[in-house]
Amino acid sequence: MAAQTAVSTTNPVDLGSAAALSCRECGHRVPLGPVFACEECFGPLEIAYDFSQYETEELRKRIEAGPANIWRYAPLLPVPADVATKPNLNPGWTHLVKADNLARELGVTGGLYVKDDSGNPTHSFKDRVVAQALEAARAFGFTTLSCSSTGNLAGAVGAAAARAGLRSCVFIPHDLEQGKVVMAAVYGGELVGIEGNYDDVNRFCSELIGDPAGDGWGFVNVNLRPYYAEGSKTLAYEICEQLGWRLPDQLVVPIASGSQLTKIDKGLQELIKLGLVEDRPYKIFGAQAEGCSPVSVAYKAGHDVVRPQKPNTIAKSLAIGNPADGPYVLDIARRTGGAVEDVTDEQIVDAIKLLARTEGIFAETAGGVTVGVTRKLIENGLLDPALTTVVLNTGDGLKTLDAVAGTGLTATIRPNLDSFREAGLAS
Amino acid sequence: MAAQTAVSTTNPVDLGSAAALSCRECGHRVPLGPVFACEECFGPLEIAYDFSQYETEELRKRIEAGPANIWRYAPLLPVPADVATKPNLNPGWTHLVKADNLARELGVTGGLYVKDDSGNPTHSFKDRVVAQALEAARAFGFTTLSCSSTGNLAGAVGAAAARAGLRSCVFIPHDLEQGKVVMAAVYGGELVGIEGNYDDVNRFCSELIGDPAGDGWGFVNVNLRPYYAEGSKTLAYEICEQLGWRLPDQLVVPIASGSQLTKIDKGLQELIKLGLVEDRPYKIFGAQAEGCSPVSVAYKAGHDVVRPQKPNTIAKSLAIGNPADGPYVLDIARRTGGAVEDVTDEQIVDAIKLLARTEGIFAETAGGVTVGVTRKLIENGLLDPALTTVVLNTGDGLKTLDAVAGTGLTATIRPNLDSFREAGLAS
Repeated sequence: MAAQTAVSTTNPVDLGSAAALSCRECGHRVPLGPVFACEECFGPLEIAYDFSQYETEELRKRIEAGPANIWRYAPLLPVPADVATKPNLNPGWTHLVKADNLARELGVTGGLYVKDDSGNPTHSFKDRVVAQALEAARAFGFTTLSCSSTGNLAGAVGAAAARAGLRSCVFIPHDLEQGKVVMAAVYGGELVGIEGNYDDVNRFCSELIGDPAGDGWGFVNVNLRPYYAEGSKTLAYEICEQLGWRLPDQLVVPIASGSQLTKIDKGLQELIKLGLVEDRPYKIFGAQAEGCSPVSVAYKAGHDVVRPQKPNTIAKSLAIGNPADGPYVLDIARRTGGAVEDVTDEQIVDAIKLLARTEGIFAETAGGVTVGVTRKLIENGLLDPALTTVVLNTGDGLKTLDAVAGTGLTATIRPNLDSFREAGLAS
Repeated sequence: MAAQTAVSTTNPVDLGSAAALSCRECGHRVPLGPVFACEECFGPLEIAYDFSQYETEELRKRIEAGPANIWRYAPLLPVPADVATKPNLNPGWTHLVKADNLARELGVTGGLYVKDDSGNPTHSFKDRVVAQALEAARAFGFTTLSCSSTGNLAGAVGAAAARAGLRSCVFIPHDLEQGKVVMAAVYGGELVGIEGNYDDVNRFCSELIGDPAGDGWGFVNVNLRPYYAEGSKTLAYEICEQLGWRLPDQLVVPIASGSQLTKIDKGLQELIKLGLVEDRPYKIFGAQAEGCSPVSVAYKAGHDVVRPQKPNTIAKSLAIGNPADGPYVLDIARRTGGAVEDVTDEQIVDAIKLLARTEGIFAETAGGVTVGVTRKLIENGLLDPALTTVVLNTGDGLKTLDAVAGTGLTATIRPNLDSFREAGLAS
């Protein structure tokens, strides 16, 4: 059995239509609880639902009448039915931007959309996943919300815990950039620097989960991971609903651990099974930075296993060298007819600027990765520009300003018209 | 007649129910055009509407069926009816957060809400006003969108122009902080540094509007100001609709030029006249930083005129020493039974941290001003804690990280349990 805190799991918990935890490898089922690995085969556990009570058109109406946030999909998430009334950050229902200017630049004729998750409360998709983990933490009686992080997740956990009235304790490498530390610290929770690198932080957190010192602690991305990960399904739900309950033909999704991509696939499959969208093919493409491209390398080599890499890229929010869901990503890309591709740091920066210049969206480096990969996939013929394509931007450029630090003034003039004309700025 | 470009205003323009420009001082009316000052008395022009065609319940249904952005209120704004189909940033419909934790800390029992405009596309309320100016620019045939700015506005204009396919040219003091320059430059428009301070930048822009070199240029906050300013009405509309079509008893609004506060009052009055909310009293409170408090000083001294100040505060987005709408703000605060108050920079920082710690909202300094002023108004008995109160946060903490730069790690430990226990972090 996976490391687990002393909190009881024998009491029934109300997490909506979530029925059990099921092993992704062997299918073994266990009751809902703060566990993440199968006791039989050590495979990853994920949520199994009972959706049998839903009638398609009734469910569709219920969703459409719901709030303008992820809780419109509460019936399909591991949360209690009254979740929208509890204090949380209410993320989601972010803009799906019809990106006609970008489409022209890239030569996409079939309709290009950017799902812009920088509109979330702490400006990254992490608010979606943390919101699920928070409900699980409440259900299991945890009093401290925790995680290891190097950026987006720290702020999302700190903010969510603050609003929910839980204690938070976030672990980061002690030498993080000051800006990231401030962003994580401002919510007033414990922010603990670990003398070591991110791997040391992670190892320490795993140790803490198995120790009485960590009793009552919910680590959103460890012992609450099965719940946490489900938050990414809401990206799939929103994209389809915003397209008028229609599957896109192609999606370009960033890969860090790979969890987001696999859960987007899971979300799309659920919508098909529930009859909310037509059952027709879609392709999922994975996007990585060349400086951390273990899944892309495996994909291109035709491998089923992913060889870990030591990350070296400006796309730090994607810099997971040993991605847990890598093999599942490979499977999904191949099964759906997609691909996995990577771009250089220079191409990432170019793509950030391209998206900002064409659509007024200032993406973090992860958004530069997906837009850059989309361009590359079109160039090498793997992505069909005549099909409807959705590209994810999962974070905000304000958090990775260093990536575009070279951007600046186009001219400096004296405050008079002569100087203005000399600079060639007149219409 | 105010400075005006060579663009014709004799052709009829379609700006929805906007019927004319009307002088706020003498009532003189002129056709819709890119003008901002009365030709008779030099008073400020504002939009006059013809709302006579609207039946209350039909209008309410139309709004409720509209998109989850400001264009749900298109019938009440100076924009064409099909505005939602044009490429723009679709700002608005930001969260109205029920702030129960903050209410407990401040002793508010009548219901406390934070209208959190950091959720807008470029993370400030400026997206609302720029979106109106953009439609006016299109209507008048302008091809360049421009402004003078020291921060939020530059990004909002750059992003909006990029998406709309217009040229943008933004003027800023040449020695702005690098971070702000990057944020404004990333959208790819012209970003021109002026050798001088913000007053020099403004003076130069006024000169440019009267010169052929500025032909075809729409300055969102100068010659398009009457349209631009109307965007702030949408804050009033959203607050009331989100409260269930109910006026709040009290609102706390930041003051820079004072335009936002006056337009929120205008929006509330319109909702009353249209029958969308009950006609009952509300109080509007203005919030300033002590280091730039010309309106607060005038209010406390009982003056009708505002004596300019030289700003010196961390709340730079509010640092307008000679606020154009100051006298109107004084009038509204007195007429509604509100007040104008100011807080020190230290109180601003405390309030930013208080809001983050209690509600998970990371506000820019302007949000620290409104929350800090709310606390002070309760302490001095001017704001009634037993009444429903809405506090505005108009921007994002990520843009003013320096204000909370002192925030940091609560502990640094070695990656082992002994070190963890020694730090007193165990549950």
